[in-house]
Amino acid sequence: MKITKEEVLSYHKEDKPGKKEIAITKSFETQKDLSIAYTPGVAYVCEEIAKNPEAAYDYTTKGNFVAVVTNGTAVLGLGDIGPLAAKPVMEGKAILFKKFAGINAVGILVDEKDPEKFIEIVRAISPTFGGINLEDIKAPECFYIEEKLKKITDIPVMHDDQHGTAIVTTAAMINACKLTNRDIASLKVVIVGSGAAAIASARMYRHLGVKEIILIDSKGVVHAGRTDRNPYKKEFALPHSMRREEAFNDADMVLGLSIPGAVQEEDIARMKDEPFVFVCSNPTPEIMPDVVRSIKPQAIIATGRSDFPNQVNNVLGFPFLFRGALDTRSSAINYEMMLAAANALAALARKDVPEEVKKIYNKDLFFSKEYIIPTPFDKRLLVEVSAAVAKAAMESGVARKVINIEEYKQRVATFI
Amino acid sequence: MKITKEEVLSYHKEDKPGKKEIAITKSFETQKDLSIAYTPGVAYVCEEIAKNPEAAYDYTTKGNFVAVVTNGTAVLGLGDIGPLAAKPVMEGKAILFKKFAGINAVGILVDEKDPEKFIEIVRAISPTFGGINLEDIKAPECFYIEEKLKKITDIPVMHDDQHGTAIVTTAAMINACKLTNRDIASLKVVIVGSGAAAIASARMYRHLGVKEIILIDSKGVVHAGRTDRNPYKKEFALPHSMRREEAFNDADMVLGLSIPGAVQEEDIARMKDEPFVFVCSNPTPEIMPDVVRSIKPQAIIATGRSDFPNQVNNVLGFPFLFRGALDTRSSAINYEMMLAAANALAALARKDVPEEVKKIYNKDLFFSKEYIIPTPFDKRLLVEVSAAVAKAAMESGVARKVINIEEYKQRVATFI
Repeated sequence: MKITKEEVLSYHKEDKPGKKEIAITKSFETQKDLSIAYTPGVAYVCEEIAKNPEAAYDYTTKGNFVAVVTNGTAVLGLGDIGPLAAKPVMEGKAILFKKFAGINAVGILVDEKDPEKFIEIVRAISPTFGGINLEDIKAPECFYIEEKLKKITDIPVMHDDQHGTAIVTTAAMINACKLTNRDIASLKVVIVGSGAAAIASARMYRHLGVKEIILIDSKGVVHAGRTDRNPYKKEFALPHSMRREEAFNDADMVLGLSIPGAVQEEDIARMKDEPFVFVCSNPTPEIMPDVVRSIKPQAIIATGRSDFPNQVNNVLGFPFLFRGALDTRSSAINYEMMLAAANALAALARKDVPEEVKKIYNKDLFFSKEYIIPTPFDKRLLVEVSAAVAKAAMESGVARKVINIEEYKQRVATFI
Repeated sequence: MKITKEEVLSYHKEDKPGKKEIAITKSFETQKDLSIAYTPGVAYVCEEIAKNPEAAYDYTTKGNFVAVVTNGTAVLGLGDIGPLAAKPVMEGKAILFKKFAGINAVGILVDEKDPEKFIEIVRAISPTFGGINLEDIKAPECFYIEEKLKKITDIPVMHDDQHGTAIVTTAAMINACKLTNRDIASLKVVIVGSGAAAIASARMYRHLGVKEIILIDSKGVVHAGRTDRNPYKKEFALPHSMRREEAFNDADMVLGLSIPGAVQEEDIARMKDEPFVFVCSNPTPEIMPDVVRSIKPQAIIATGRSDFPNQVNNVLGFPFLFRGALDTRSSAINYEMMLAAANALAALARKDVPEEVKKIYNKDLFFSKEYIIPTPFDKRLLVEVSAAVAKAAMESGVARKVINIEEYKQRVATFI
């Protein structure tokens, strides 16, 4: 699938600039409608919310409204291009929320790099929204920003660049273990990259019991003897130095979250047979799948690309994490909910795939090395993943609204 | 037109909470669409904007996207109910922008009362938008907030509570003068109220040449001998104290921006015959029209209500001010543009009214004491007022894009 620059620019420009608009959902044609939706009638609604803030979920868009917030410091692979130039990405993310989960989302560009000031700005505007998706904020600031915002706001906050990739690769890892009869706890995992997604993935894998995790950044294996480490890399620093060769020796899995060329043929050659090679650099993976296969024919390969099997795409996660969190009026998106999403994704990939989904992708899809994670246009994602997240929210005590999961599964299917 | 609380709450709650949603405006059905609207294709758009910030207007929603921003300190007549309880008003305003001018708008609630911090928050998020409509922020902070934000942002900023009323009452004043052969400069005007709208109206009338303006607040006539004045009231303080009776003696016009009962029968009795009585307190005017008419049968009366003639409704102004400002990519909404809007409103009321508008209001409408300002559901407003604003923007040097006004009039009609 070849995409040209001209095609992309034209899509964004014609016939109206941008990709989304505001639509009015209520009757709004008469002088009476005007008096109900605005003054003087609307005062009744304000008074209800002033008495009971929870009523904002009943009478306003708050409960189905997510801000996609960036300061433009780490946009795609483009780096610190500033908030305005990040706008097309934020609008793209906003329409993904709508398309895949029926969530109204709006990109908010924040012209502020200082973490404390950025946090204060996002906190101040948070009453507007039911949830906040942090996006394209550079590491290591992104970790602190997310941590602090989680503490000081009463709505779910998630930095998707961290957790989205962690959730989807966790699902892939679970299923790759099933296909190869490996035990998660016994995996040796090498992570190439040390940004937001790398740290979050390492944390999630460790949470799942993975004991041997080796982080490799541009300077080599992260270990305690290095002085250039930020506190987040430190979490995964090995006690002693290690050569790259040793890191890859008999590794079960490599997760690439770096740049093309960051995983080499000799790295793959050192790995166990039937390795998991999840190389997510986009559009060009750290190493190309055909090269991997020429060295390890039985490898289970995932990439960030839609034209190869097993696309690691955040869109498999964030729409349903927020859907489940919003519908239970959760105060947070916690680890339990993220792991529930990962497990639900993995379970869905093991189920029979409906014909309509196969038609979209124009190929047979069944649980195998070529299909360990679901595809984005599979509508069962909305039902299964959102419900799993909602259930975990209730069980872990962050839900402020109790819902019946079976009834919810019926209802949530109608949201898109 | 009677509106019940139940009716209003039900309108806001069913069948989805709130009054608006996000809609996707581009084709977004296939894996290819995904790759164009989001990664990897969208990177081309980011690069264009990084090279040339102006391109944000070509490729994103920025140029047709307005934030309706409040801190909830002066919401309707309810006072300081906080940002969350103000959300229904902000959403109401947002759908007015869409309905009347085709502008996408979103309410942004800012949990911050300190003016300097509030200003910094709004500045930081301003790259997101093409314009900022400040709303329901209490006086006197609102004046400073607007002034400073105008200086430090590069997009139009307008506090509608100030200027909306000023513009519409100016239009009413211009036409009332025409109907009674008075000269604006010679008017004696009493303003009852001293909040945002009162100060802004006084400023606009003075700008138009009105020499005699008397401000009355809850403590009586504002004069230089009083110590309780804020700097904004000071602008209109009389040099010496004056009794209320004297203020109303032979006054041509009273503008009520206060509370029911703030204008009394004896006030009206002291005014000139054929006075202009614009009593805008809502839903109950400062004095009822029938009472005014029993004292001064020839009075020209306007209120804030839709069920009386001559409704002073901000919706006659802000949608078209922002429309004209956005379409010329103006860096500000300045006085010239606001006066152009007032004059365009006045001129439109003097024209023949189309049958379709008369049908909506179910009565004959023609330039007279009962019809000195247009009605909100008159679609000519979009064309005439927006074009006048756009023209003034270009002539006053704040437009960054030159448009052909005649061609624009054809085009803007299609925006709703």
